[in-house]
Amino acid sequence: MEVLVPFSTERPKSRLSGVLDPDERAAFALAMLRDVLDAVAAAGGEPRVLATAPVDGDLSCPVAVDERPLTPAVNAALDARLDDSPGERDPIAVVMADLALATPAALRELFAAGRETDVTIAPGRGGGTNAFVARHPAFRVDYHGASYLDHRRIAADAGLRVDVIDSHRLASDVDEPSDLAEVLIHAEADGGDPGRAARWLRDAGIALDTTDGRVGVVRE
Amino acid sequence: MEVLVPFSTERPKSRLSGVLDPDERAAFALAMLRDVLDAVAAAGGEPRVLATAPVDGDLSCPVAVDERPLTPAVNAALDARLDDSPGERDPIAVVMADLALATPAALRELFAAGRETDVTIAPGRGGGTNAFVARHPAFRVDYHGASYLDHRRIAADAGLRVDVIDSHRLASDVDEPSDLAEVLIHAEADGGDPGRAARWLRDAGIALDTTDGRVGVVRE
Repeated sequence: MEVLVPFSTERPKSRLSGVLDPDERAAFALAMLRDVLDAVAAAGGEPRVLATAPVDGDLSCPVAVDERPLTPAVNAALDARLDDSPGERDPIAVVMADLALATPAALRELFAAGRETDVTIAPGRGGGTNAFVARHPAFRVDYHGASYLDHRRIAADAGLRVDVIDSHRLASDVDEPSDLAEVLIHAEADGGDPGRAARWLRDAGIALDTTDGRVGVVRE
Repeated sequence: MEVLVPFSTERPKSRLSGVLDPDERAAFALAMLRDVLDAVAAAGGEPRVLATAPVDGDLSCPVAVDERPLTPAVNAALDARLDDSPGERDPIAVVMADLALATPAALRELFAAGRETDVTIAPGRGGGTNAFVARHPAFRVDYHGASYLDHRRIAADAGLRVDVIDSHRLASDVDEPSDLAEVLIHAEADGGDPGRAARWLRDAGIALDTTDGRVGVVRE
């Protein structure tokens, strides 16, 4: 299954500006992207980065550049792949580049469900659409606002069947400092190779702060 | 499977004080508890509330009162159920009362996994332990701090096998205003009966606020 991973090279992860400077945010975003690409490939997907500009460094997968904002760029990709021709269609997946907790197991479940129905969505915390698989040409994205609700509505209006993937790992996109805690918690809990994003955070001195109710992060 | 649902009657949900007054927080906490009890029963569990004091109103399930804090109360319950006698043991589950998004499907997966291994944990966002099933008498809880990490460590130190349930619904305990958005988003997305907690929020005038990046709530 082709898996598009949209990636913005411009001012990535600005909501982490209280913890990381611009160069650090760019490096951390790239570490997350590489983790996601690895997880996609390990889950049997064929990753392709959909970037707003050329990406520095070898990503060991094809990179397509589309300068437009996320919504038109993804819709153009859906248009190009899911035409109205009759017969069996290959589904296409879109997985966000900041799902630092994504595992091959969670993505495998998404891809498997995606082969069975018109649209399969992994909602993000806070109403986002962190990943989806579309098999039907009538589906279109609109990433503005609570996109999960919009995508359910778009699918319902088009009479499409929708499946929802209930995964904490796929629901956890990394935008805010509290999300960094999530990356570190699961890297520590799982043991073994923590992945590039968690390793990057540790090397940058970002550590768990367990002094308050929910666990946060401190920079040491 | 016996499923303990710990419930604190004293100043519940204090971190929602910016949005709800004390009486409202108590009513909302009770609505979530009832939703959790329904979901547990629909998943084939036998719910029993473990409350810090008698609970007002009929919960249609047994209520045991233990005034102690969460950790000793749950450990006493594990002690009483999981003795060292040889032979097949019935596992026991502990599910938090504020998992307003918990579905029978998510709990069914937890209970099924819990029958197969020593300890099965559904981590909460921010490092909590939102639900677990214990089958082995060596497991003990410690809910202070990042309890998910502590519980993984306790299990590893005792040589126990651990399974982890990856569920956004079980990871979403409701403590802070942003968690209310999560309740409303999934109630709206799923359609049908939103459940008591989401209905209570809507009746109280709590609505989604999609003006910012991640969706929050406003009170109308």
